[in-house]
Parts: sequence; structure tokens; C-alpha cells
Amino acid sequence: MASLYDFASLAEKSRKQSNMPMNLYFDNAATTPMSDKAMEAYIRTEREFFANPSSVHAEGIKAKKELERIRRSFASMLGVKEECLFFTSGATESIASVFSSLLFMQPGKAIISRIEHEAVASWLPVLSYHGWKTEEVKAKGGFVRPEDLASALTPDTKLAAVMAVSNVTGAIEDIEALVKTVREYEKTSKRKIFFFSDSVQALGKIPYSLSSLDIDGASFSAHKINGPRGIGLLYLKNPSAFRPLSSAGGQERGKRGGTENLPAIAGFEAALAEWLEDADTKRHRIQGMNAMLRETIASLDLPILSPENASPYILSFASPYPSEVFVRMLSDKGISASSGSACSNNAKGESEKIMQAMGIRSDNARNAVRLSFSNDTSEEDAGYLASAIKEICNG
Amino acid sequence: MASLYDFASLAEKSRKQSNMPMNLYFDNAATTPMSDKAMEAYIRTEREFFANPSSVHAEGIKAKKELERIRRSFASMLGVKEECLFFTSGATESIASVFSSLLFMQPGKAIISRIEHEAVASWLPVLSYHGWKTEEVKAKGGFVRPEDLASALTPDTKLAAVMAVSNVTGAIEDIEALVKTVREYEKTSKRKIFFFSDSVQALGKIPYSLSSLDIDGASFSAHKINGPRGIGLLYLKNPSAFRPLSSAGGQERGKRGGTENLPAIAGFEAALAEWLEDADTKRHRIQGMNAMLRETIASLDLPILSPENASPYILSFASPYPSEVFVRMLSDKGISASSGSACSNNAKGESEKIMQAMGIRSDNARNAVRLSFSNDTSEEDAGYLASAIKEICNG
Repeated sequence: MASLYDFASLAEKSRKQSNMPMNLYFDNAATTPMSDKAMEAYIRTEREFFANPSSVHAEGIKAKKELERIRRSFASMLGVKEECLFFTSGATESIASVFSSLLFMQPGKAIISRIEHEAVASWLPVLSYHGWKTEEVKAKGGFVRPEDLASALTPDTKLAAVMAVSNVTGAIEDIEALVKTVREYEKTSKRKIFFFSDSVQALGKIPYSLSSLDIDGASFSAHKINGPRGIGLLYLKNPSAFRPLSSAGGQERGKRGGTENLPAIAGFEAALAEWLEDADTKRHRIQGMNAMLRETIASLDLPILSPENASPYILSFASPYPSEVFVRMLSDKGISASSGSACSNNAKGESEKIMQAMGIRSDNARNAVRLSFSNDTSEEDAGYLASAIKEICNG
Repeated sequence: MASLYDFASLAEKSRKQSNMPMNLYFDNAATTPMSDKAMEAYIRTEREFFANPSSVHAEGIKAKKELERIRRSFASMLGVKEECLFFTSGATESIASVFSSLLFMQPGKAIISRIEHEAVASWLPVLSYHGWKTEEVKAKGGFVRPEDLASALTPDTKLAAVMAVSNVTGAIEDIEALVKTVREYEKTSKRKIFFFSDSVQALGKIPYSLSSLDIDGASFSAHKINGPRGIGLLYLKNPSAFRPLSSAGGQERGKRGGTENLPAIAGFEAALAEWLEDADTKRHRIQGMNAMLRETIASLDLPILSPENASPYILSFASPYPSEVFVRMLSDKGISASSGSACSNNAKGESEKIMQAMGIRSDNARNAVRLSFSNDTSEEDAGYLASAIKEICNG
């Protein structure tokens, strides 16, 4: 299949010809371009396994086998059983399938952290409408403290959700301690609490072990790690206890209906494999860039909003101007950065609300700029970004 | 961007080298391979518009503009306002967003036809759980009769759903008459009924005019017309009256959360444009093949299960053997056909249930084989298929 490899280089050439500022892209927490390997996997799989995996003819069976091969590959990469993994259209859908499944239960209490992405937070009014009690746990300094989660737990609590890594500041939550808190409470209440962790910004970007974390569910997205858009993963520790709102066509063993998006699933596999290969080395390199940029920002007397030990892939700081102004000034220099989370039509308002919950001063929240990196971010470009920030601030 | 066009020919070559039996593929109602134009659009858009359309930097704005250009293009192709179109991960999700939105209403009655796809039918138990009354309207001979729908309508009916074209037999439902029935009932009851029509097998395949049909909502899928998998469309006549279960990140004007899958949306656009170009001529050609195969099947004294005036893209008949046996015999000759709808893990059972509702004899239902065509199906291959059917039946 040499032609596919020819394509990769052609695509690279076409990228260069069109002068896309890929290299000055610092909004990788919003989305990342597909890597050549992910694109190759997408094309190859579309051509070779085009049939519907639910079809019973030879081509359908071949597609089904490929789907299950990829699921095993994910299981091996994530260190969990393949029966626990379900492909969805993205993290938003993975989250929705967990939260909407609550509508089949007797209403109880659902607890989330105050720093959750809107894909999670937007479910609270839905649950309230259906008679659920809800509570948002504070996250002073950016971190949800086990004692704060503990004091929110009640005998009728059925779900607790805390994200693994903040998409706003990169803060790494202590999921292990939070799960432990919940598990200990379960021992006294004798009732199961579903611990969910939206892990979109964790996958590939921090040491993260699904197998050692005792969580019940997690959501992942391909397009944050140079995989295709429109494909995500739902992890369920105990799938047999999980009833989705609708099983539709019964695909994904009844947990997610709709024709399986096999090319995108293959692209996701290729992207994740690439991210996990020498992940420590890659992270170390990004950490170096992050440290250099932190130094630059500190030397300009600008407050850094990301905690010290945050994910190296996200660096938030307070610029001297309102976020959108500073982002536009960077954009004029060919640099893409974000005013906060990009994933909302009202991203700035949402990010400000979340930063407020973290205890970040409101003037700093209003001026917040988020730089986010990918493994294809180069030191040269980070250097250019540092100079641009200095120029704007000194100029 | 010559390289992308080079790619198209390379992809074609790679397809030929790998000896894929693309030309003997008669399961196009299950899924279709991506056309080269759709693949080109996917790759080009991924490379040129890789940013998150919700990001506020120049690249994000560029992506947003492209998204809205494509939405206008769909609006023009479908003859409706762009504000009425929402991109989803596929028809299953489009359907789910309509049915799940009912969970925000006071329970009433929901009516669907007995021949709906599981993506629709699976919502009845969900609605029942939440206190809704549900009814399935019969479809004797494959068609839902307006009088049968009329007699199911009650003052508390809030939704009626009838698919445009059966995925099992290709039967074209008289949506115009059914909508008229509902609208007349509304005049006496003075209450709005949401008329939904799953139109997956109609798009591009029969004369279908969203603008002249007075329906409130419809679902479409790209991968049935040689577009990418994982992308679909939701049409809402009156979006402001529609509240999705969760708006998540607020994308698609609050109606569908999640990062927009721009490359797949562009692939969908290219595929639809290709299908709609000279659609009548293309349909006429497929009609010819369909007629030839009908003749072959009739000459073998096998019952044809598709109505006379069905969509030419679907032809169901009762083989002399149980469906799965005949499908395997065809598969051994390099031909992909279906035992029924392929979209369910329990496809055969579902299809049999639907055929029973249509009044098809159970022995014929058990032996049903579905042949389904795409615009790239050739007369030569249809001829080969006819010979293969004859060989099996005479052999």
C-alpha cells in the first residue's frame, strides 16, 4: 500500500504550499490537526474496511474483525479490558451517555466539581428537572479537595464527577484520593456511587492509568491528540450495570447505537499509539517549553494562572489586556491561542466562571490567555511565541 | 492543491491493488464507501480548516466561516433555511435528540409506525418509562395509511414519526398525506404535534423535497450516500421551539454540543452535491438495473418483497433458503448483500418483525434478501449478480 505513504508526503507538501500557520498553533487543548499517521489510518481503513461491521457478508465480517482488533489495541494501550471500551462520537457524547443514563434511576443526588467542562455541567439542569438534587464542589486553588467532596456526599448520592485535568488551567486533579473518599463513604452508606472522570485532557498528556484508578467511567476524545474529530471513547468499569437511554441499533454491545465510524476509530488508534510512544520523553520536551514560557511570562510580571505542577500541555496566564484583545494581538502575529476553553459558544464566560471557582481574581480571569501544546509543537515556535508575548507587553 | 487530486487516483489504485470487491457490493443501504470527492473534501478541509470553529483566533474564525458556508450549501441543496440545519454524528443521534427532547415535556402520547428503524423504535420503552403513552401504527402492505394514523391521534399526542423510505423494502411512505392528516387533527385539537420523518434512505434516492413537506423534523446520514461515516444532519422546522436534553458546549446554536466535525461535514457536502447532480438520470439508471433484477427474480418464481413503486435503490425478495444461508452463498461468490437491515446486532429479528408488520408471510420474511444499490453500481455488476442468483437457485 505504498500509495498511502506517498499520500502522506503529498499532504505534507500541500500543507506547506498553502502556508498554513500550523507551527504557530498554540490552541491544541481546543483541537489538534490530524497527524499524518492518523490520516493514513483513516484513509486505509475507509478503503479496506468500508462495509458495515453489522453486515453478515464477508466484507461486513472483515470490518467487524478490524473493529474488534482496534478495540483490543485500545484495551492494551489503556491497560483495561476490551469489554469496558465503547466508541462514541466524542467526549461530549461519552459524557451524555453516562448522565442521561441516570434518567432511568430513581432520582438521587449528583455531585460534580465546579470546574467541569460545560459538556458535564450542562447536565445539572437536566437532572434537576427530573427531580435530582445536584451540588457543585468548590475547587479552591484549582483543585477539588477530598474533604470538600466528602462533605457533599449523602446516602442518596448516585454519581460524583471530577475531571482529570482542567481544560482551563491544566490543573491535575487528585482523582485517586477523590475516588478513595467516595469508596470509603460507600462502605458506610452501603450504596454504590458512580465515579466519573472526564479525562479528555489527560489522555497521553499526563501519566494516567485507567487500570490503577478505581473509577467507574471516563470520557476521551481523539481530536485532542491529533486524531480525527467526531470520535471518542467511553470507559465503563462495569458495563453490564450500565443502561444507556437508547440502545438504537444495538451496536457497541447495546451501549451505543449508530453505524460504527471505523475509519475514525482507526485514526484514533494511530493517534493514541503515536502519543503513547515515548510519552515521557515527549512530555519532558513540552515541559521544557512550558518552563521557558513561564519564565518569560514571569519576567513580564504577569500572573501565571496554571498551578506549578499542571499538565505541561496547558499554560494559562493573565495578559495585560482583556483576553480577546490579547488573543487578537497574537493572532495578528500568526499565532493561535485561546481566551479560555474554546469548546463553548460562550467560552469566555464559562472559563471566567471556572476560574472564579478556582479562586483566581476576576481581573486576572478577564485577561486570561491559554497557550496549549501538542507533541508537534517545536522549540523554535515556542521561542517565537515568547518573543511575540514580550513584544506585545513591552510595545 | 494538485496533490489532493493525485491522492484521489492513488487511493483508486490502492483500492484496485488490494482487490476489494467494491464492484460487487450490493449492501449500500447499510453503508457506502466514501466517494473520492468526499474523501478529497475530508482531507482538504482537515488540512485547511483544522482549527476549532469556536476558537476566536484567525484560524478558528476561518473554520467557523467554512462551517457556515457549508451549512448554507446544504440549505440551498435541501431548499430550506440554514437556521433549520444542525450537524450531528449521524441519523441515530439526530433521532435521539428529537426523542430525548420529549423528556422535557409533560408526558403525552407518541406515535410511530411499526416499520421504523430501531434508532426510532428503541425510544418507545424510554418514553414509556417516563410516563408516556406510545402506539405503533400498522403498515399493511408496507405503507402507513393516513386513516390508521388518524385513528391513533389523541388530544395528548405530541409526536408522530413515520420514516420516508423503508430500509427493509424501499417502500416510499406517503409523508405528504400523513402530515396532512396530522395538521388537520391539530385544527380540531388546537395542539401542536411534532411530525418527525427519518429520511435516511430518501436523501438523494427518491424525489424528496424538505421545503414542500410540512414536517417538523427529519434525520439524514452521510454514509448512505458515499459520504463519511459519523456525520449526519438534523432538520428542525422551528428550532427555537426545540430544547435538546443537553446543549453541552453550546455548539450548533445550542442544539448540539461537541466540537464540530468539519472535515466530515465537508465530505458530506461533497457527497450530497454529487448525488443530487443529475439525480433523475442516475435514479433512472438504477431503476433499469432494479427492473432487470426483478425480472430475473420473478423468472425464478421467487416472491419480490419490495412494492412496485419502491425506491429503486432497494430490492428485497424471498430467496429459497433462510436469509443468512443465501447471503453467505452470495458472499462466497464475492457479492455483498444483506439479510435485512444491517444496522442492528439483531438485524434479522428486527427485519422479520418489520416485514411481519407489513403483512409479509413469515416464511418469506425468514428467507428475505436485500439488494441495495448506489450510483456507482454498474450494469455489468448487476448482470453478474443476476447470474449468481440464477446459478444459486438453479444449482
